[in-house]
Amino acid sequence: MLEKITENLQKSCHLQPDQLILVGVSGGPDSIFLLDVLHQLGYNLVIAHLDHQLRPESSQEADGVKRVAAQLNIPVLIESLDVGKYAKTQKLSIEQAARQLRYEFLFRQAEMQKAQAVAIGHTADDQVETVLLHLLRGTGLSGLAGMKYFNLPNPWSQTIPLVRPIMDIWRHQILEYLADKPYNPYEDMSNLDTKYFRNRIRHELIPFLEKFNPRIRQNLFQMSGILEQDEQVLHATTQRAWNQCLISAGKDYLQFNTVVFSEQPLGIQRRLVRNAFMHLLPDLNDIEFQNIEQVIQFLKEPPKSNFSRLAAGLQLYSEKNSFHIFNQLAFLPGNQWPQLQSNASINLEVPGELNLGEGWLLISQVVENTPKNLSDATSNPDPYLAWMDFDQITLPLTLRCRQPGDYFQPLGLSGKTQKISDFFINQKLPRRARPNWPILTSPGEIIWIPGFQIAHHTRVSPDTKRIIHFKLERKPAISK
Amino acid sequence: MLEKITENLQKSCHLQPDQLILVGVSGGPDSIFLLDVLHQLGYNLVIAHLDHQLRPESSQEADGVKRVAAQLNIPVLIESLDVGKYAKTQKLSIEQAARQLRYEFLFRQAEMQKAQAVAIGHTADDQVETVLLHLLRGTGLSGLAGMKYFNLPNPWSQTIPLVRPIMDIWRHQILEYLADKPYNPYEDMSNLDTKYFRNRIRHELIPFLEKFNPRIRQNLFQMSGILEQDEQVLHATTQRAWNQCLISAGKDYLQFNTVVFSEQPLGIQRRLVRNAFMHLLPDLNDIEFQNIEQVIQFLKEPPKSNFSRLAAGLQLYSEKNSFHIFNQLAFLPGNQWPQLQSNASINLEVPGELNLGEGWLLISQVVENTPKNLSDATSNPDPYLAWMDFDQITLPLTLRCRQPGDYFQPLGLSGKTQKISDFFINQKLPRRARPNWPILTSPGEIIWIPGFQIAHHTRVSPDTKRIIHFKLERKPAISK
Repeated sequence: MLEKITENLQKSCHLQPDQLILVGVSGGPDSIFLLDVLHQLGYNLVIAHLDHQLRPESSQEADGVKRVAAQLNIPVLIESLDVGKYAKTQKLSIEQAARQLRYEFLFRQAEMQKAQAVAIGHTADDQVETVLLHLLRGTGLSGLAGMKYFNLPNPWSQTIPLVRPIMDIWRHQILEYLADKPYNPYEDMSNLDTKYFRNRIRHELIPFLEKFNPRIRQNLFQMSGILEQDEQVLHATTQRAWNQCLISAGKDYLQFNTVVFSEQPLGIQRRLVRNAFMHLLPDLNDIEFQNIEQVIQFLKEPPKSNFSRLAAGLQLYSEKNSFHIFNQLAFLPGNQWPQLQSNASINLEVPGELNLGEGWLLISQVVENTPKNLSDATSNPDPYLAWMDFDQITLPLTLRCRQPGDYFQPLGLSGKTQKISDFFINQKLPRRARPNWPILTSPGEIIWIPGFQIAHHTRVSPDTKRIIHFKLERKPAISK
Repeated sequence: MLEKITENLQKSCHLQPDQLILVGVSGGPDSIFLLDVLHQLGYNLVIAHLDHQLRPESSQEADGVKRVAAQLNIPVLIESLDVGKYAKTQKLSIEQAARQLRYEFLFRQAEMQKAQAVAIGHTADDQVETVLLHLLRGTGLSGLAGMKYFNLPNPWSQTIPLVRPIMDIWRHQILEYLADKPYNPYEDMSNLDTKYFRNRIRHELIPFLEKFNPRIRQNLFQMSGILEQDEQVLHATTQRAWNQCLISAGKDYLQFNTVVFSEQPLGIQRRLVRNAFMHLLPDLNDIEFQNIEQVIQFLKEPPKSNFSRLAAGLQLYSEKNSFHIFNQLAFLPGNQWPQLQSNASINLEVPGELNLGEGWLLISQVVENTPKNLSDATSNPDPYLAWMDFDQITLPLTLRCRQPGDYFQPLGLSGKTQKISDFFINQKLPRRARPNWPILTSPGEIIWIPGFQIAHHTRVSPDTKRIIHFKLERKPAISK
């Protein structure tokens, strides 16, 4: 067993024998075992323990960790945080709050101590439970591959890896090993996150599955290891495809070559879209399969509109040979918003065209025939296109910036009126974009806020005889 | 639902509207539903039904299928086979026998009828059950991806695909749909294979998992679809790697470039080895993970011997820059066995070297120092190398073919004596290789059969003072 762990430490966890390792010790058998083994193998260690203050006996557990640290003569860092209070103020579940505070504590201390890694005592049993947990909740390949021996970058650090040196050791081996040892481990708190669900997996589901196959745990553990290697191959393939497809990238947007993207196999396309979501929304925990499929479907069978609203505030914008996925707060790649001069008031002819600078064009035209698909016109799916009932509109049309006291009756708000200032806030238009955002007016009223919504009363209805169509587009500047 | 199936038929099952489809109809709801839908969509159909003769009512089920065929005016082929008897004579389980006879029947008929495909009524529920079945028995990515809409080549045909057009339809949808229809489906026999285990999955495991997540079936179904795409990417990557690594191939052997192989990621290496096993043993049902790891490990940390016995009668032979995986019955790539002239009797000097032709060399030498690892010498891991106690051997040594009445006391058979003719049979040496196989003798006894075993009394022991070492090797001819 020690031989196996020695190999894990060197080959899977990439640990240097002479550099400090910070060991997260809850005081339970798994982490005490990890500590004992690392100590025996002569590693340079520091212990870190977080008192979660969730149970009356938690300070005794901290004392237990101190005692083991003294027995082994290893320095120990103990911090006490009110997880319950943090959960309340941050509106998190106890489990989420505990996990967040614990890992933040471990990596904060690891950085201060200049540790090469944070080591934690996840076992083969934990791995099997994690795989089943993912399986039950719905997952793909990376979820079925479970946890990794070596995790870098991780959500807490770009430079310090999270390592799991005993991930192929079973809990019963640990308990047998510790039976002769002078420690007195507590019930392990390290699996507090998802405790309830995980406990049900451990005590109900796994014994049930063992009735179907007594070797189910070994099988699932082996499966996770095989799938981890498959996942690594696909990860590398995806990375190469990403580099081939990506035209330009920023914090708020990504531009891909549509042709090169479409040539990728479906499995890689899905991974590219997932990566794009992760790039634009690094705090996102998980992305629903449907949200990924939406992008794939859009590119496979492009709809009439070249805009689409995605999940989590992202948008898709498609051009001839490229498409952008971008954060709606950024509005368009490179933060190149449509903007007017502060006191501008520009007449828009019908039909007509206005050049707003930076490649932006506002176009108006009268549509003689009702569009075939009337719902396209009425539901207004692309906020940079507008269809209106021409007979509901008074000419002349003027494009101008917002003015104090402006109000607006947006489509779909059941005729309710909103102040423009409130409307912009509700739509999360960045503050600095608001003063010079173009607004289309007819005498005495706002009829369209390009990028957002038309006025309710201008909407196309079955009685509409003539349709007026507006388009705000940005031509060559965006396609780079 | 019909729209979905129409898309499946065209895009996933690649069916042509004007060519014949053979539909496997058990008489149960799933296959009756499939039949009804294909009929409605105007496909050109023929029904095939196998009466398994396993239950008294099975001929009534055949009548039921005939009735439906008449209702829809579709030609029907019915065959009756005694599955129970076949299982007994072929020493198969009832489940295996039924599956084998049924698919053989379907594809035999499909070929005779010149059908473009065999269509069967597997549903989304069947897919979920299959995924869980694989998961319980131990599996990798392709097992988790489950069944395919389109399967070609399949174990029954290289040209006619097995298609599953209703694999995304749930059983409850089928029952609802059939409620208004004038059919009278029987309990479905098509899942007879693995019936017991599958029934336990359906009636015990899935309801249990639904207590953890009511959407578990939908999740598992979606997961299998995602993983199928991942599997396709890895399949293509493996195919490219195979073409890069492969130096030469025959029915009985494969030769790979060791350097190019070792540069592949571990996940691809594993898939290459799996493919090699499948290539050499096409009838093999499954390969244990451990058998694959053995090859990976051998190449990663080559042992002293360049031979290794693998599972299922395969062997591994490693040279400087390439390695062979070959069937032991073939003995060496291209069936180039070491062979002597029929009446040859050749003196072998010590030290000395004999050229046996076709690149084969027999070398003898005295080893002054005991090899560091004595167990290498005593356990005789490479059958083309031999270490013996020099003091147990009488000179001169002679190489000759077998003679009538030859016997041999092989190492490790607890001193028992065997006739050479029996020994060759036991070792599965092909009949045509036996008469001219080289045998090393000292006066009056056989001391080594190269490729197999040394004589028991010649073995190296702790008391051995001088060791004689033999090597039969094939030099440039094998490395191509």
